[in-house]
Amino acid sequence: MPSALSRFTVTDGRHFRLRRMDPRGGAHLRLKKEDAADALAKTVGRIADLQEQLYAHHRWGVLLIFQAMDAAGKDSAIKHVLSGVNPQGCQVSSFKVPSAEELDHDFLWRTTARLPERGRIGVFNRSYYEEVLVVRVHPELLQRQGLPAEVMTPRLWEERYEDIAGFERHLARSGFVIRKFFLNVSEEEQRERFLARLDTPDKRWKFSPGDIKERARWADYMAAYEEMIRHTSAPHAPWIVVPADRKWLAHHVVSTAVVEALESIDFRGPASPGPTRRELALARQALTAPAKKRR
Amino acid sequence: MPSALSRFTVTDGRHFRLRRMDPRGGAHLRLKKEDAADALAKTVGRIADLQEQLYAHHRWGVLLIFQAMDAAGKDSAIKHVLSGVNPQGCQVSSFKVPSAEELDHDFLWRTTARLPERGRIGVFNRSYYEEVLVVRVHPELLQRQGLPAEVMTPRLWEERYEDIAGFERHLARSGFVIRKFFLNVSEEEQRERFLARLDTPDKRWKFSPGDIKERARWADYMAAYEEMIRHTSAPHAPWIVVPADRKWLAHHVVSTAVVEALESIDFRGPASPGPTRRELALARQALTAPAKKRR
Repeated sequence: MPSALSRFTVTDGRHFRLRRMDPRGGAHLRLKKEDAADALAKTVGRIADLQEQLYAHHRWGVLLIFQAMDAAGKDSAIKHVLSGVNPQGCQVSSFKVPSAEELDHDFLWRTTARLPERGRIGVFNRSYYEEVLVVRVHPELLQRQGLPAEVMTPRLWEERYEDIAGFERHLARSGFVIRKFFLNVSEEEQRERFLARLDTPDKRWKFSPGDIKERARWADYMAAYEEMIRHTSAPHAPWIVVPADRKWLAHHVVSTAVVEALESIDFRGPASPGPTRRELALARQALTAPAKKRR
Repeated sequence: MPSALSRFTVTDGRHFRLRRMDPRGGAHLRLKKEDAADALAKTVGRIADLQEQLYAHHRWGVLLIFQAMDAAGKDSAIKHVLSGVNPQGCQVSSFKVPSAEELDHDFLWRTTARLPERGRIGVFNRSYYEEVLVVRVHPELLQRQGLPAEVMTPRLWEERYEDIAGFERHLARSGFVIRKFFLNVSEEEQRERFLARLDTPDKRWKFSPGDIKERARWADYMAAYEEMIRHTSAPHAPWIVVPADRKWLAHHVVSTAVVEALESIDFRGPASPGPTRRELALARQALTAPAKKRR
């Protein structure tokens, strides 16, 4: 069955152009806003079911990566799409400014400790992709990473794409299903959401003065996102460019992609070795034998 | 200056043949056994000096990996070569049978947390290379790793070599100098060392009955080591095939290789940003100003 999301999914980025992706796209999905909440509830239920199978089967793991501009709706998407899942089988990790200890390692180091185990869904709210986004837009951050001058060559960004792609290929080969979401919000929509944050007392905490500074670099960020998607898309680790100007539609696209990712796994394959039939029979015998008298 | 160790160093493994490497080789180094202890003491002192520079410069890190058959002298080499170094700048990690949590991740996961930071020497006593050594010789171990059937293809070993090589390339690009030591002991020398372990009360604890079983697979192990070296040697991550039948010579080769690795780093390059000249002047002023009267 072809995916309903094929228009948003990039498995080969060589010819990708971000300007062709409409932040208000998705009309072909024929979802009406008033039906979105019901549809989402069903999809979230399906995710919860599939996650239980993932957990019991215990062979595959799932890694979901979220990247976007501020106010594009990362937190909201994670909350709405994954709130139905048993937290024992789902770990969300947010990555902010790296610590001194983290900067003293290679840039793939700090996320590794937070990778999901087999049987689980791991969610990265931002990730090692920041290293080719914010660090690319602000090369002065690179200066603070403590890298030897000898490795800071003109090929550095290309090498980072290559290293990320190699790492994700390794993860896929190790039994991890990867989906990467770029929440594609428009500059105008971000402006409105920022204004709403300023105007609404209980949203104001989300606003930081630095947000305006980053917003001023919009074109540079879009160029960095486009380059990232061009270099790191693969069939085993696709980028899904989510039209994010309408949150209800974004949640629909993300949740559908998560279902499709889980459905791509064949749970009929041999699960991790459980008890043998003989062991089960012996246990039944022990549990049903007449109780011995207490001494 | 050409390295004294070029005969042992593999930077391109395509034509590597293990049988051409003599476990009793090294005559061309013209080291006499009676001079070895003095020579080692000097080299160890040099390592300690260079490590201090590495620590102060704080741009590069060093990763030393040791792999070998049992009783080849890994522990002894690490002890003798690195005992002079400030432990604050040197971390040794030994990797034994993986835990259940470790097996629930990709095979490069568990070593990552133990990678050295910039400015430090990290030593791996065994490593992710076990995944293409003991696991290759005993494919039944692979069955216990919980991998999905779909990823256990005939290309699995080739993929593991590729993933390891990609990971080490990434580390090198991030400013880590890598040296990998295969302590090449002969089957006969291992036999004698095992017998010595059995015969010497204070060495007996080192012996495990499983050692004899692994010894019976000698040819398979040698084939796995050869394949490993053929596929994972690179100029930025060479294998050094250490003639290990004579420990004093092995220690000489390993320590010389560590010195050469450290000397390959240009410490004249810009170090991590320290205090500026102005800050130093202000500090001097503050420290030398006449003390104020206590209130």
